[in-house]
Amino acid sequence: MADEVILLDFWPSPFGMRVRIALAEKGIEYEGREEDLSNKSPLLLKMNPVHKQIPVLIHNAKPISESLIILQYIDEVWNQNHKLLPSDPYQRANARFWADYIDKKIYSTGRLVCGTTGEVQERAKNELRECFKLLEAELGNNTFFGGDMFGLVDVALIPFYSWFFSLETAGNFSIADEFPHLVAWAKRCMQRESVAKSVPDQYKVYDFLLDLKTKLQPQLQQQH
Amino acid sequence: MADEVILLDFWPSPFGMRVRIALAEKGIEYEGREEDLSNKSPLLLKMNPVHKQIPVLIHNAKPISESLIILQYIDEVWNQNHKLLPSDPYQRANARFWADYIDKKIYSTGRLVCGTTGEVQERAKNELRECFKLLEAELGNNTFFGGDMFGLVDVALIPFYSWFFSLETAGNFSIADEFPHLVAWAKRCMQRESVAKSVPDQYKVYDFLLDLKTKLQPQLQQQH
Repeated sequence: MADEVILLDFWPSPFGMRVRIALAEKGIEYEGREEDLSNKSPLLLKMNPVHKQIPVLIHNAKPISESLIILQYIDEVWNQNHKLLPSDPYQRANARFWADYIDKKIYSTGRLVCGTTGEVQERAKNELRECFKLLEAELGNNTFFGGDMFGLVDVALIPFYSWFFSLETAGNFSIADEFPHLVAWAKRCMQRESVAKSVPDQYKVYDFLLDLKTKLQPQLQQQH
Repeated sequence: MADEVILLDFWPSPFGMRVRIALAEKGIEYEGREEDLSNKSPLLLKMNPVHKQIPVLIHNAKPISESLIILQYIDEVWNQNHKLLPSDPYQRANARFWADYIDKKIYSTGRLVCGTTGEVQERAKNELRECFKLLEAELGNNTFFGGDMFGLVDVALIPFYSWFFSLETAGNFSIADEFPHLVAWAKRCMQRESVAKSVPDQYKVYDFLLDLKTKLQPQLQQQH
């Protein structure tokens, strides 16, 4: 019997993009179901009752949540195809370390750059700069974070490339000027079919975030 | 040549305890080095330049940081002895999910219960109750979170047992009365030699936290 694979997803979510990329790298056919996060489906609430968040991968009726955990699950189940994690335990630990770093830093800091102004935004921008500096140092002269191999850290980070125009516009700075190696890496990743079809256009994400801000503004003002 | 294993540690840290338990389960000899967190050693700063935090496991001069990543590294390198993660990918994903949940919720919520008062503390206490309720449901009638096997989730959670007296005293509630299954599980874990020698006495941790509060109080008052 063929595997039944369903992905509960939301197109601008960097965490959803990660899973899309991994499934594409492995060549796994699946049914993507777009969630309305302001009105979550009974299936999402049933499949991820703890966090109630996308992405959720449902493999033969069994749910897996949290994007980095899903990536490792995909890598372990479909282990004949392109490996996302290296086989050496130390290199595996290193990949997990940086993927975890991206999880802890990039999303929260990026949100502050896009969603705040003044001093708070300035601090977040500088923190994001520090993150990018560390990531460029880790990348070094390698093609990918996984060396020659497109791996876990690449999959974890590349979705945020779709936010770059929004970050640059909100923060009034140029990521390409300040971090040319990181942007060159991102462009290399975008040449992969798995990434190109999973990571949306930067302008489309910008429009989405702008629209979201407009919708949230009245609510935010009411809170003052 | 024998492996050289060093653990940069701090005795009341639940994250350090996790690594101590895993090393003991695997029967690995190591040198534990106690850090002074108010005056971190040059070795710690060199070995974990990104987070500058304990625990750091240094295995043959190579550092691994972040406790859950260290646990997986230990499980992969010393894979002949007691396995912390099951071999089935779905069960592995489930173990990683709950270990991650503990990481995201218990420490931060526990700190708020111990370190605040009034409404903030009450909210944190209720959130902690919700966490314990979910964890008890996940445990069910099993001996350990890993079923019959003492595994990753058990190692991730049991260090917080050493905080229970502090949480109960600060929050004025009884964890044993409200969550008898969780406390029974903790007592089963404490019967293991690996846990008993790695997780300090609850009263010792209470004295430590009380002492810390006294030291921090003048600094906190200056911030007002």
